[in-house]
Amino acid sequence: MIEVDFNSDMGEGFGAWTLGDGVDDQLLDLVSSANIATGFHAGDPGLMQRTVQQAKARNVAIGAHPGYRDLVGFGRRPLQMPADELVADIVYQLGALREFARLHGLRLQHLKPHGALFMHLARDEAAARLLVETLQRLEPGLLLYCLPDSATWRIGRELGQPLVREFYADRDYDASGSIVLVRRMGALDPQAVADRVLKACQQGRVATVEGGEVEVAFESICLHSDTPGALGLAQAIRQRLEAAGIAIRAPGAG
Amino acid sequence: MIEVDFNSDMGEGFGAWTLGDGVDDQLLDLVSSANIATGFHAGDPGLMQRTVQQAKARNVAIGAHPGYRDLVGFGRRPLQMPADELVADIVYQLGALREFARLHGLRLQHLKPHGALFMHLARDEAAARLLVETLQRLEPGLLLYCLPDSATWRIGRELGQPLVREFYADRDYDASGSIVLVRRMGALDPQAVADRVLKACQQGRVATVEGGEVEVAFESICLHSDTPGALGLAQAIRQRLEAAGIAIRAPGAG
Amino acid sequence: MIEVDFNSDMGEGFGAWTLGDGVDDQLLDLVSSANIATGFHAGDPGLMQRTVQQAKARNVAIGAHPGYRDLVGFGRRPLQMPADELVADIVYQLGALREFARLHGLRLQHLKPHGALFMHLARDEAAARLLVETLQRLEPGLLLYCLPDSATWRIGRELGQPLVREFYADRDYDASGSIVLVRRMGALDPQAVADRVLKACQQGRVATVEGGEVEVAFESICLHSDTPGALGLAQAIRQRLEAAGIAIRAPGAG
Amino acid sequence: MIEVDFNSDMGEGFGAWTLGDGVDDQLLDLVSSANIATGFHAGDPGLMQRTVQQAKARNVAIGAHPGYRDLVGFGRRPLQMPADELVADIVYQLGALREFARLHGLRLQHLKPHGALFMHLARDEAAARLLVETLQRLEPGLLLYCLPDSATWRIGRELGQPLVREFYADRDYDASGSIVLVRRMGALDPQAVADRVLKACQQGRVATVEGGEVEVAFESICLHSDTPGALGLAQAIRQRLEAAGIAIRAPGAG
Repeated sequence: MIEVDFNSDMGEGFGAWTLGDGVDDQLLDLVSSANIATGFHAGDPGLMQRTVQQAKARNVAIGAHPGYRDLVGFGRRPLQMPADELVADIVYQLGALREFARLHGLRLQHLKPHGALFMHLARDEAAARLLVETLQRLEPGLLLYCLPDSATWRIGRELGQPLVREFYADRDYDASGSIVLVRRMGALDPQAVADRVLKACQQGRVATVEGGEVEVAFESICLHSDTPGALGLAQAIRQRLEAAGIAIRAPGAG
Repeated sequence: MIEVDFNSDMGEGFGAWTLGDGVDDQLLDLVSSANIATGFHAGDPGLMQRTVQQAKARNVAIGAHPGYRDLVGFGRRPLQMPADELVADIVYQLGALREFARLHGLRLQHLKPHGALFMHLARDEAAARLLVETLQRLEPGLLLYCLPDSATWRIGRELGQPLVREFYADRDYDASGSIVLVRRMGALDPQAVADRVLKACQQGRVATVEGGEVEVAFESICLHSDTPGALGLAQAIRQRLEAAGIAIRAPGAG
Repeated sequence: MIEVDFNSDMGEGFGAWTLGDGVDDQLLDLVSSANIATGFHAGDPGLMQRTVQQAKARNVAIGAHPGYRDLVGFGRRPLQMPADELVADIVYQLGALREFARLHGLRLQHLKPHGALFMHLARDEAAARLLVETLQRLEPGLLLYCLPDSATWRIGRELGQPLVREFYADRDYDASGSIVLVRRMGALDPQAVADRVLKACQQGRVATVEGGEVEVAFESICLHSDTPGALGLAQAIRQRLEAAGIAIRAPGAG
Repeated sequence: MIEVDFNSDMGEGFGAWTLGDGVDDQLLDLVSSANIATGFHAGDPGLMQRTVQQAKARNVAIGAHPGYRDLVGFGRRPLQMPADELVADIVYQLGALREFARLHGLRLQHLKPHGALFMHLARDEAAARLLVETLQRLEPGLLLYCLPDSATWRIGRELGQPLVREFYADRDYDASGSIVLVRRMGALDPQAVADRVLKACQQGRVATVEGGEVEVAFESICLHSDTPGALGLAQAIRQRLEAAGIAIRAPGAG
């Protein structure tokens, strides 16, 4: 790899509330792509506008980060719904963010569903297919962020939607290449995280919780902005990659 | 007048709930412009999409009908908020509907704020100015529906936003030309309403609650879809106008 | 059977919206127990108060009808959440209704969870156990409505919470005794429904979709107030039962 | 004064979000009364329960802190609504908290409306009267927190509801005795705030923004938990009062 995308979720507060340490602005100095929450799991119109402006000021590419309509659950609770309802919710949120982009002279680079909706689309072929078909009609060039080997990825590839697979800097992997969801106790060590990311970029491999290694294929590194110590992790990752000659660059950059 | 717009609010249910008699589809056969609720006071993404499709099938022009974020109050309760917050809420909702229009190959003809938000903009110069300035940046040709002689109308004219003033078929007027908000007891008589609308179109005058008459200037007739008997009223209005040689036609029609 | 409870969900509008035909007041003349929606899937404080007053005027027993926090989905979309979160949501809603009961000099007779939450508790042992344990601390005499043979029923019986099993007048049964969820096309025939209910009360059996019969055990008949033609169905059921000498009577009636 | 109440708003996060510094637990070690957010402007059922438990563990008296139904505006945006609707919203929230208190063997000491709702009741005689009349029916001994000389206070006194007037440790006063709402730039100095509070307790006077002094009458000191540096302010206030021989004690304590 000589370049890689670095993305983070942004604007995930709501009204008077901020998420985690509230370090969006500093993170925007470090990432290449910002996934902006679009109001259903987090984000309000004022915050969306502010985040678009902050991203623009730093030349960071923006994308929509729609979630389930579940503020209290932060879009992390699995919710069953018909595919057409799910896709309509995404179209709604995508348009809401696109209007702020339009107002500030930006274009949307990508779409990255949030939390349980992201996992829903990774597993549910019908929902993933309807989403990709809808994107093909709306904007066939919009990048769709996804899990490697997910339904989203398979159908996106089949229908020709451009895809960006993610490597999760702040999550553990198991031998199957899946992410292990754990409530982590302590803080992550920035240097260890940076090492892991660099190895993934250079060798396409990551250590597993079982003690071995597994292959990972990706075009973007994801760091969750509410991971404790996110700012320090982002700084370490960026530094390590740049020192190794790997540029951080949005996939939609000209 | 040889032609006039006829508009009605549409898609004002939410999830399992419909508003009033639920006669949107039949009303769409009679009006020229549909104001589609955009989710804050009413309307959900599935219903928005459905309403866009139904309007398209009947060649009815569509516009966004954003409201305060107040489902339980149906956007009818006055709410104070800073102008930038209010305008961000409108931009958000406008974009959400625009995305459904885009998906179905339509363009938005207009913007008509709902209920207490509509009245807020009619009175609050700062909010009206920020809205019109924002529309000038977003889409200078988007028609803005407004009250005659309102802040919205004055500032829209000053800044060059195209405006559509409304005559309210189902509301009483007083000697000042203002609408009288009453909780009406009985149903309106369709023929009397049609008479009133025809007179307004032909003579630019309407009877007042005080017993006299007052001048009215407008480009569109508005009928609220939740007025009891709305469908019969709309049929009577359309019939009367067409019989008098006045065509019902969307203002943005080519 | 010489007496049976007859219950229906009530107050399931929200703000300006009513559910279905909006026949709550007339249904209250026919049932013995009202399940009052408590704000998360439907119902707002004003409507809750009004429904409590209407039930009191007709001497109908009242209970809380809490749902998932999902207005747009009317609490019918399955949602995963930890048991403690789910039970806290129920406690919150139970208390909200209890306060209106207290204000109007009534006591709550029962608790009947709504829609997908009802089914969640029927299947999830941990959630059902935590709910019943919580009720044991809050009010060990509160009647808990449930599905026959559900987790709620088993654990309620184990811990000593008084239970009321339901027979669904407006749903089909299969050979396993389970309800068949179908989107029904046409309206139900009131006499056929009344026949079915009478047979269930007298013989403890119901016809199945497979063409046979299955045993049903219950203490209450449930009719959904948003079933098309609910009012006519309720009238037919009440008439048929009374004609057969079966009194309709709330289970908590002294 | 030999004793005074010290109250703070608590549980004003929502789902994944905390308010301000998230120092509720530490503040609970310092105050005598906790106003627990009840879900409309902030607070969710899980957080309400947790806050009730934390208050119980520290023997802090609890009260309901209901707000307008306005999460995005944190209940701080003035909203017009009929008195009966407003009071129904309060009854709903009061009951929700009371149920958690009941579950954990506590009783509610008080009711303190939040933000714009608090100010609404301070000014609107009809709403204040309906609220107090409702409390008289619900629980005539429930303490009602209010502004000195407000409509709430006048009507509460007239109808016999026990009242607790507040002094605002973290707000400026003007010569009329009113609070001056300013967006403060810098942090407050804990020692200066403690001095001000002690003087108010001992002399019943506070310095004004105009440079003079004005009389203040109160039974409770209020510190907002989202004031920057709230924890340090609370420690300084408590220390200063105790050093001066003034005990901090809930007004409803036996």
